[in-house]
Formats: sequence, structure tokens, C-alpha cells
Amino acid sequence: MTYKKLPYEGLKAFCTDVYYGYGFPRQESEEIADVILCADLYGFESHGVQRLIRYHKSMLEGNIDPKAEPEILFETPISAVIDAKRGAGQKMALFAMHTAIEKAQKQGAGFVTMRNANHYGIASYYAMMAAKEKLIGLSFTNSEAMMVPTYGRNAMLGSNPIAVAMPAKPYVFSFDAATTVIPRGKLEVYEKQEKPLPYGWAVDVDGLESSDSTRILQNIIHKAGGGILPVGGSDPLNGSHKGYGYGMICEIFTSILSGGPTSNHWRRGETSQGFIAIDYGMFGDKKEIEERMSQLLEELRESDKAEGQTRIYTHGEKEQESAKEKQLSGIPVNEKTEGELREIAAYLKLDYESYIRN
Amino acid sequence: MTYKKLPYEGLKAFCTDVYYGYGFPRQESEEIADVILCADLYGFESHGVQRLIRYHKSMLEGNIDPKAEPEILFETPISAVIDAKRGAGQKMALFAMHTAIEKAQKQGAGFVTMRNANHYGIASYYAMMAAKEKLIGLSFTNSEAMMVPTYGRNAMLGSNPIAVAMPAKPYVFSFDAATTVIPRGKLEVYEKQEKPLPYGWAVDVDGLESSDSTRILQNIIHKAGGGILPVGGSDPLNGSHKGYGYGMICEIFTSILSGGPTSNHWRRGETSQGFIAIDYGMFGDKKEIEERMSQLLEELRESDKAEGQTRIYTHGEKEQESAKEKQLSGIPVNEKTEGELREIAAYLKLDYESYIRN
Repeated sequence: MTYKKLPYEGLKAFCTDVYYGYGFPRQESEEIADVILCADLYGFESHGVQRLIRYHKSMLEGNIDPKAEPEILFETPISAVIDAKRGAGQKMALFAMHTAIEKAQKQGAGFVTMRNANHYGIASYYAMMAAKEKLIGLSFTNSEAMMVPTYGRNAMLGSNPIAVAMPAKPYVFSFDAATTVIPRGKLEVYEKQEKPLPYGWAVDVDGLESSDSTRILQNIIHKAGGGILPVGGSDPLNGSHKGYGYGMICEIFTSILSGGPTSNHWRRGETSQGFIAIDYGMFGDKKEIEERMSQLLEELRESDKAEGQTRIYTHGEKEQESAKEKQLSGIPVNEKTEGELREIAAYLKLDYESYIRN
Repeated sequence: MTYKKLPYEGLKAFCTDVYYGYGFPRQESEEIADVILCADLYGFESHGVQRLIRYHKSMLEGNIDPKAEPEILFETPISAVIDAKRGAGQKMALFAMHTAIEKAQKQGAGFVTMRNANHYGIASYYAMMAAKEKLIGLSFTNSEAMMVPTYGRNAMLGSNPIAVAMPAKPYVFSFDAATTVIPRGKLEVYEKQEKPLPYGWAVDVDGLESSDSTRILQNIIHKAGGGILPVGGSDPLNGSHKGYGYGMICEIFTSILSGGPTSNHWRRGETSQGFIAIDYGMFGDKKEIEERMSQLLEELRESDKAEGQTRIYTHGEKEQESAKEKQLSGIPVNEKTEGELREIAAYLKLDYESYIRN
């Protein structure tokens, strides 16, 4: 697969015009494009413009309504439950996180849960929104079931990522990880490369470990049984029950509190998400707290490396370095994705070439 | 090592009188004893009466002041920072969680962080306190550094457990786990049994994996380097960075927010802890939310088992079954521990035999 570097600003303008073309207002279109391009900047290709064709198909099939507006179903000074009305995932999640941030700015904390949502992109985008406002941010989403619980043989929980961000210098702390040992995208990569899966990643329909990526993927798609293991693998000896527990925590802050279907009953357009913002000014001088965080992160990066290693990363560091670099040098886009972008451009009568010209 | 079953009520009365003997008021002594015995009921021997001798030595050495009272250093309607004044770990943590619960009952949520604390026993006790009040409870503690970050060779974070509890029937959801792949106690068990450590548990002073439990333990004790790996092991391929990230989340809600030393600067009597209570009534009808949670947990337990397995557990189920059984049939106490209990009784002039007579 050949990759080509395309200009960040051009791709973002293109994405914006695509959403504008679907009927979203200009500002919303820009905001949605920012979420999508952020994934590419961070190096999460799977959630970047590569995904645009899937959103496009959802639009054409009428699964995403550009006119849908979020509805607050239940609210207190520090909480809200939102119905996303199957609107665009990014638009609704932005609204939800803004709601959490506003509550935190007024009351110290904001807890928002949302149901009937679509795929919202990378979880860390929303946690980082809070960090930009000098708050701690958390973001959660459930998904189609793909995690097999410890001792089970059926996928019961989603990949259920948890993202947490907190201001620090020079790199904002930004943790974002599926509570499965790997996200589904990694299975797809191994399948394309015809590589056997490492031990501890996935189980077959009998609940026993398997290295056959094609079989596992087909099983997930056809809900035949089996799936991806929690962080910690299949055995409690290695912490399988811990990954399964982190997946449950995500499920609580998404479907359980919002009233949407749990991952094992997931249906398209009925994803549940959670957003939390915490003003750490509730615990003292914000600058001092930020400095403590920055110091710990620096001590981690500076601590001695394992033999053969040259660097210890803190969470978010790689992504923030990647973003800086890609804003200047461009976003690597593979030829298949570029073909899809041209297809979308043609449909919306946009002049694709005019956006990516350097 | 021979084990003997001792009556739950008798051991609890003994523990209560021990703390009363140290100079704690009777009610506080009962509450502390309840935390300690709860660990034994749940089957966490390491945190039960087995640990009493360590608390006893701390008392004799003057490291724990029975007269110490918690001081609230900073407070908002939904938050508090507490100085535990190196008082008894359980007493201070009980105060902190009660503070979080009261705030949640009034405002919807309570966030409490505490510094200058001692070992507080099992993290889940405090999360469960909130669950008993029909709230979601979270509890965190940092500790002496023992987790080696991904690609590192020095222990930088503690075992950093995260506990989360939420009401459900018939078993309260109660997750409680070190963010290291194993707690330190497990290393000690392997050393006593002279068993090699499985791959993915620990690294030696060079940061490379080792199966030598004696060496690893000695290294941790003498701060020579190496230590226990995060959940996910040493390689990001298996999610090492995820366990390391969960450890960081614990560190944020403990030392970073309270202002205590981070795990890599930990000193005795300067542990930091975090306590959160959330009233899920902020998200709608509490009964409906509890029912959704109970249903998901039941669906997990009822889902198909892996070949060779007969049961899928939900978090807290084993512990709650164990507690029920042990309240009736007694707490298994090994002969070494019983010797220590006799030693403490002699010191405090208590008639040990009178407590454990059935």
C-alpha cells in the first residue's frame, strides 16, 4: 500500500466542505473536520480521513441525520443525560463535552452521558477539550460487543476505550486506550499482512486462544462467538479480570447511566458515551497541581531505560509530537483512502485536487 | 503452613479491643476492625488480621498516632483535600469516604483526596461504603514505587489499585485491582513456594523480564532497580502502556491532586489516597439504573463459558460469596499469624483465647 503525504490544512478544508455538503452548518462542519483530522495528526489512521467513506455511506443510507439536534433528557447542575438522536457522532459528542466543561467551570465537575449516538472518532479528542480549558477530562464510549469476558466464549463488552487528559508541560497527559488488549483495527492489520496473532489477543468460538486473524474477524462480524480478549489476556494470572473490569467501568459511564443498550445489545446509531470534566481548582492552586503533574511526567521520561530501549514515553507525548510534525510535513494517506476521498468529492461535486495542491 | 478456622465475630471483637487498647475510642476501634476483617471475609488474607502485626509495630514505633485527627485543608461543596496527619490508615480513610459520601448525597458528587496517610487496607472497602449508600464509589491509593513503566528499568509508580463499586443484585459490582499485573503479595507467595514467576510479571535491574522472585523482591526492598510490570506486561503489543496509564490515573487522584509525594518519592506515613462518590440519581431513576446494571451482570454470568470453564464471574461476586460463607464457618488463619495475634494480646494484656472460643 503506497502512502502519499497530503497537506493538513487542505485535507481539513476538504473534510469541512464534505460535511457542509451533507447539509451541516459551516461551523459544525469545521468542528467535525477538526475531530477527524486530529486522529490523523495523532497517528491514529484508522479514525482519520480513512474513516470518511464509512461516514459517507452512513449519510447516504440516511443513518445520520444532519439536522438532528441533541436533546437534554435529564439535568442537574453537575450532570446531564443527552439523547444524540442518531446525529453525527462528532457533533453530538462535542455538544456533550462542552456541556460537561461548562458545568465543571461553574460547579467544579460535569458528568454527561449520552445515548443513541454514532461513532465519535478518537476518545482522546474530547478528554483533550477539557484539558485545553485547564480541566481534567474523561471520555468513554461503548461499541459493538467484541471483548470476551474472562472464562467466556462470547463477545459481551465493546472495545470500550477510556480516555483521560490532564494539563502538563511540555506534553499534556493524554491516555486513550481500548480496554481490550488490542482494538479491532489491529486485527484487521494482522489479517491484511497474513500474520498470526500473538498469544493473549483473541479467542475462537470455543473460548480458547487462537492466532487466526481471519477466523476471529469473521466470527466477530457474523457474531459467531469468540472475539478479542481484555487487557491482561485470557488468564486472571496475567490480569484478564482487570481488563474485563476496566471494560465494565466504561460500560457504567456509557450505557448503564445513559440508558442506552449495553455493548452486548448494541445496534447502529445506539452507541452510548460518557464525558466527565473536573476542575482541579477544587483541590487547591491549579498552577501547583499542574507543576506536580509535569514533574512526575518528566521524572518518568528521564528515568533509566530498559536494556535496548532509548526512551520512556508518557501518555500523549507521541501523539503530540506526531501532530506537530504532520501539521508541517503532511498527513500520510494511502492510495485506497485517496480513491475514497475522490469518490466522496465526485458525489458532492467538490474539486478534490484544489484542496490537496500544496 | 497449617490453617485454622477462627470465628469471625470473635476475631472482630479481638481486633476492636486491640485498637481500643492502643487508645482509639471504642467506636473508631470497631470501625477499623470492620475494615480489617472485611479483607479476611473477602478472602484477601494479605490485608486481613495477617497484617495486624505490621500495624502493631507501627503503633509501638510511634509511627501511628491514635490521637491524630484528620484536617480538611481545602474544601468546596463537592470536594475536599484532607491531611491524614499520619493517623491510622483505616480511620482516616473512613473519614475521607464519609466526607465524599455526604457531599454526593447533597450535591450529586464528592471528590476527596488525602495526603500523609497510612496503609488503608483493601481499596474496595471504601468503594463499597458508597455502594451501600446507593452511590457509585471509587477509591484509589498510591504506594511505595514498584511498577516499572513501559521501556523503563526502575520502579516509578506504586501498585496503585483502583476500586469501583456500584449497587446491583444479587452481587454488588465491586472491582478492586492493582494496576500492576500482580500485587506485591503474589511475588511473596511465589518466593515462599520457590516457583518461577510467569513471563510478563517482573523485570530485573536491567529492565528485562525475570522469573526470579527472590531477586525481584530484594531489588524492590533495596530499591536496587527493576520491579513489577503494569497490567499488560512489558510490551505495548500486549497493552503494557495501558496498565502504566491506569497506574497514572490512580496517581492523579491521589498524590497529584492531594499534594502528597508521588509513588517514586513515597515515604512511610505519606501515602496519598483518593475517594469519589457519585449519586447516579443525577442520571435518572435510580431503580432503573440499578436494574440495568444487574441485568448486564446477569447476562455476563449466564453467557457461554470457554471450553473447560464452568463459570463466568462478575466483579465482587467471589468476594461476596466468600464473606457469606466465612461469616458462618470462620476465617482461615495460619499458625504464624495466630502466633502474632497472641503476641499482640500479651502486649495489651488481652485474653486471646476468650475471643476465639467458639
